[in-house]
Amino acid sequence: MAPATSPADEPDGGAPAVRIRLDLAYDGTAFSGWARQPGLRTVQTVLEEALATVLRLPQAPRLVVAGRTDAGVHARGQVAHVDLPADAWLAAPGRASRSPGDAVTRRLAAVVPPDVVVHRARPAPPGFDARFSALWRRYAYRIADDVAARDPLRRAEVTWHPRSLDVPAMDAAARGLLGEHDFAAYCRPREGATTIRTLLAFGWERDGHGLAVAHVRADAFCHSMVRALVGACLAVGEGRREPTWPAQVLAGGLRHPGVTVAPPRGLTLEEVSYPDDAGLAARAEESRAVRTLAG
Amino acid sequence: MAPATSPADEPDGGAPAVRIRLDLAYDGTAFSGWARQPGLRTVQTVLEEALATVLRLPQAPRLVVAGRTDAGVHARGQVAHVDLPADAWLAAPGRASRSPGDAVTRRLAAVVPPDVVVHRARPAPPGFDARFSALWRRYAYRIADDVAARDPLRRAEVTWHPRSLDVPAMDAAARGLLGEHDFAAYCRPREGATTIRTLLAFGWERDGHGLAVAHVRADAFCHSMVRALVGACLAVGEGRREPTWPAQVLAGGLRHPGVTVAPPRGLTLEEVSYPDDAGLAARAEESRAVRTLAG
Repeated sequence: MAPATSPADEPDGGAPAVRIRLDLAYDGTAFSGWARQPGLRTVQTVLEEALATVLRLPQAPRLVVAGRTDAGVHARGQVAHVDLPADAWLAAPGRASRSPGDAVTRRLAAVVPPDVVVHRARPAPPGFDARFSALWRRYAYRIADDVAARDPLRRAEVTWHPRSLDVPAMDAAARGLLGEHDFAAYCRPREGATTIRTLLAFGWERDGHGLAVAHVRADAFCHSMVRALVGACLAVGEGRREPTWPAQVLAGGLRHPGVTVAPPRGLTLEEVSYPDDAGLAARAEESRAVRTLAG
Repeated sequence: MAPATSPADEPDGGAPAVRIRLDLAYDGTAFSGWARQPGLRTVQTVLEEALATVLRLPQAPRLVVAGRTDAGVHARGQVAHVDLPADAWLAAPGRASRSPGDAVTRRLAAVVPPDVVVHRARPAPPGFDARFSALWRRYAYRIADDVAARDPLRRAEVTWHPRSLDVPAMDAAARGLLGEHDFAAYCRPREGATTIRTLLAFGWERDGHGLAVAHVRADAFCHSMVRALVGACLAVGEGRREPTWPAQVLAGGLRHPGVTVAPPRGLTLEEVSYPDDAGLAARAEESRAVRTLAG
C-alpha cells in the first residue's frame, strides 16, 4: 500500500482536501476482513461507499487503516483516515446547527449496516496517518474453555474451546515472547517487508466472566501474528507443550507445524495509540522507514 | 400452566422420575420467546427436543421455566426444571467416567444451536420448582443513547436509542415505583391472575461502556411489565415527562397511552434466586397461593 497523502494534498483534481480521522468498531463475523477485495463484503468497501453516499461524492474515497484485520476478526477501537474534498466536508451539516463531524457521524449511522459503527469523525491533526503514525496496536483474544463460561450473547467475539486451559502456564509462555524480535516464526512472510516487531505486552488472565483472555500489544503486527501467538499458547494451555516452547519456536525463526493459527472469532482490535499531535509526522516517517527498509 | 409435578411423580407411565434443574442462557434475537408455540422457533421447543435427542426419549419432556421471556428477550441466568425417567438420566454418561449432569451438559452443547447454552444440569433438591420456588427475578435493560457507545459486538443485547437520555432523572423515576403495588398499569392483564407484585430494586446508571442500564428485581413480573416500566422511564429520560410521572401512572391503575413498551432487544433476564433447600417447598406453596388467589 502506498503511503497516504498528506492533508495538504488535493485528491480531487485540484480542490482543497481535508484529512479526516475516523474512530470505528465492527463485528467482523460477516466480513471478509478489512481490506477491499473485488466481489467480497469487506469493512473498507462498506465504509468507503457509505462515505460517498453521505457526502454525495462522485467516487468512493480511499480509507487508510491502522489495523488491516483478517476475515472474521473484530475491532472495537479501529482508526482510519480519509482525504476528502473540503467543500463536501464543510457542507455535511446542511441546515443543521452541528459540526461537520457530528453530521457525518449521524448520517453514517443511518446508512451503514449494524455490524459497523463509526463512533467519531473529525479533522485529523497535521501529520496524522492512521497507519504510520500509530505507536502501538492492542488486541484481545477471548476464549471460553468451559461450557459454563459460554455466553450466547457474546458469542460473536469469543472462541468456544472444547478443552479446559491452564491459564497461568499460557501467561508464562506469553511473557517469554516480550521484547523486540524477528517474529518470522509467527508471521506469514511478505516480500520486502520486515518481520521484526516489538511485543510491548502479552499476557493471559481469567476475566470476571470465566473467560481466558489474552492482551497483546505491539508497535505493529505482521499478518496472522496475533493468532499464531495465541495458537502457540493454546498448545501450552492444553498441556501439549511446555511454557518455554513458544519462545523456542520464536528463536528457531521458522514457521513451526505445531503452531496452529487460532480462529479469528476470538480476536478483537481493542485500541490504537498515537503520539501527541507534535509527534505525529515524525512517528509516521520513522514507521515508514522501519517497515520498508529493515526487511 | 399447571404446577409442575414433584420429584416423586412418575411422568413415564410408572417409571421412577428424577427432577433436573437446568441453568441456561440464550440470545433471544432469533427466537419467538421462551414458550412453545406451534410452528415457531422457541427456546422451550429447541431445548425439549434436544433433551429428547441426547437422552433418547420416545417423547420430548416438558420444561418449566422461571421467566417466560417474550420474543426477542434474552436470558443469561435462566433456570428451568424437567422431570425425566431416572433410568435415562443415569444412563447418560454411557461408558464415560463423568456424572450424568456433566454428560448431559456436554451432549446438549453438541446438539443445541449456538444461541442457546445449557450451563449446568443436575438433580434438583426436594421441593424445587423452577417457577414457583423462585424468590425473585433480576433483569437488566441496556441502552446506547449515543453513537459513541454503540458496540457492534454487543448489539444483540443493547437497544440503540436515537436521543440522549437523562439517566439521573430516569433513576429518580424508577425509585418512585419500588415496593408492593398493583402493577395493573404496567401489565397486560390475564384472566384470574393478580397484578400485585413487589418491586425489590429498580434503578438506572451509566455503566463503564457509556450505556444507560436499568437493573430491575421483583418477586415476579407480569407480562411485558419490565419493558413497560422501562418505556415509562424513557419518557422521563427524554424530558417528555417529569420523574414523578411513572409513579402517577402506577397509582392510576390503568394502562396509559403515554407508556410505550420498550423494544425487547435491550432486555436480559440476568438472575433467578431461590431460597435454601429447606425453604423450597414452602416458597413454592406460598407463590402458588399468591399468584392464583390474590388475583
